[in-house]
Amino acid sequence: MAAKDPVIITEKGEMRNWSRKIRSQGKTVGLVPTMGYLHQGHLSLIQEAHKHSQLIVVSIYVNPGQFSPSEDLSTYPSDFHGDILKLKSVLGGVDAVFCPKNLYDYSNNSKQKNKNENENCASDGGGWVVSCVEEKGSGHETWVRIERLEKGLCGKSRPVFFRGVATIVTKLFNIVEPDVAVFGKKDYQQWRIIQRMVRDLDFAIEIVGSEVIRDSDGLALSSRNVHLSPEEREKALSISRSLVSAKSAAEEGQVKCGELKDLAVKTITQAGGRIDYAEIVEQESLEAVEEIKSPVVFCIAAWFGKQHQSMGGNGI
Amino acid sequence: MAAKDPVIITEKGEMRNWSRKIRSQGKTVGLVPTMGYLHQGHLSLIQEAHKHSQLIVVSIYVNPGQFSPSEDLSTYPSDFHGDILKLKSVLGGVDAVFCPKNLYDYSNNSKQKNKNENENCASDGGGWVVSCVEEKGSGHETWVRIERLEKGLCGKSRPVFFRGVATIVTKLFNIVEPDVAVFGKKDYQQWRIIQRMVRDLDFAIEIVGSEVIRDSDGLALSSRNVHLSPEEREKALSISRSLVSAKSAAEEGQVKCGELKDLAVKTITQAGGRIDYAEIVEQESLEAVEEIKSPVVFCIAAWFGKQHQSMGGNGI
Repeated sequence: MAAKDPVIITEKGEMRNWSRKIRSQGKTVGLVPTMGYLHQGHLSLIQEAHKHSQLIVVSIYVNPGQFSPSEDLSTYPSDFHGDILKLKSVLGGVDAVFCPKNLYDYSNNSKQKNKNENENCASDGGGWVVSCVEEKGSGHETWVRIERLEKGLCGKSRPVFFRGVATIVTKLFNIVEPDVAVFGKKDYQQWRIIQRMVRDLDFAIEIVGSEVIRDSDGLALSSRNVHLSPEEREKALSISRSLVSAKSAAEEGQVKCGELKDLAVKTITQAGGRIDYAEIVEQESLEAVEEIKSPVVFCIAAWFGKQHQSMGGNGI
Repeated sequence: MAAKDPVIITEKGEMRNWSRKIRSQGKTVGLVPTMGYLHQGHLSLIQEAHKHSQLIVVSIYVNPGQFSPSEDLSTYPSDFHGDILKLKSVLGGVDAVFCPKNLYDYSNNSKQKNKNENENCASDGGGWVVSCVEEKGSGHETWVRIERLEKGLCGKSRPVFFRGVATIVTKLFNIVEPDVAVFGKKDYQQWRIIQRMVRDLDFAIEIVGSEVIRDSDGLALSSRNVHLSPEEREKALSISRSLVSAKSAAEEGQVKCGELKDLAVKTITQAGGRIDYAEIVEQESLEAVEEIKSPVVFCIAAWFGKQHQSMGGNGI
């Protein structure tokens, strides 16, 4: 299939108008929200979106609202030109790329300030990564909280993460007004949180969960993998290895989660990983289970070097 | 103008389809959210809505999410038949009334359970008032928080109130998908909170604030006034009297908020009122000011008998 040039949109109003025009023609719009630095995992989300909607919008926006001051906002990798090339090559193509400058800037002169944002948008090395969200004066102060689901797993060590994710996704939903949005099951908790939010807030949007994509060595694809040294990457494979082992053990009759977790923690720790969490949880409520009686998911996150590897999504 | 029969809608999906059909014809939809037991204040919101949109939806829903267990959900007055008669008589009419049974019920059989909700909807005396929101299991757990604005004034004594209001308004926005929504300035903090939420979450909805409507004696219209005895009502007029006095004093040069507040508190307390708060605040941030230099609003709430009278909206 010939490469398709997506339209590049940086303004909220322009994005909404584009989407409304498409939808007024009776066509459906699918949204794939990303933070850029795209890899095959993102491209698989786009391919999934093609199954559910006629036109595809990919948003590229590193959301400061989901980073706490101590986290890696400033070093989050970016490669706008490379991203666009990848989007042009994906099967079925992409119709629009929404790459706003700053979705938390509500000053009246933001249009003026964003005049050159296409250039900024295209600059590498953090040129379009804005500072953390200011929460004083007339700054942004509205947050969407999914009060129970946001607390466990990643929420324990990243207390503002999911409120930031839920809020930016709400903003993107209100700007793009899609019929469908696709999220990766690699970020299992995020996917479940967005599903719950959409139900609870009555968004008329279908949420599709797309399967984890792994590299040939087994490591789940993630933009942050770029931070891993070859040695750290090798060690990080202990996560996927321990998940595969746990799945086999469960299939062979081991239903005690404590034992399954202990084995995984031991495998990862021996490989040099520092465990953030290793929890076997019910698939929708994300509540920990002691004994497997119905479908569960084993969610593991650990640090290797300075890099945090999170890997849920392995349903058992 | 001839009375118009509004269409009565109880299902989310039907409401959204109605609105989408109207909007696909290029017409605009205005939403006036209410909790029913309508009075002239509500009807003035509808008249305001007619200035900004072509078709009008009035929602009637007593939102359990904004009541704490100790508050007056079970005694909140209702009169569905009377409400419909009033809506038929209002100048310009109303096109649709959205009166859902329970906006927090996500069980699969809710459609079945709601089969007879038209009858329930029409029953008086709390027939369509549901229990407080369940926040466990797979129940509703997503809340929209406007973190600073929700804390002061009414938020001090009603800690879950504004998260409940912001959440139900978000749900109604996502169900009705209006172009415009009208809120009364009687509930000044609520109006400002909704404005801020719409900005922060990028809703494509214009929020219109409509002026306070007072009875001939000066009392601001409120569905809860029905709970006041004639004597309590007479005493409650001390609120509007003290606001008028404060406005006059400010116009004559009294800029010290402490003195303006002391006088109002004294007037209301002497009339037998128990002050909840009396604050002179900046109009958008709702931050207390000590000296009037730019437009402010004097917000007062007090109890008379068992009844809480809140009265902001008097810009100075």
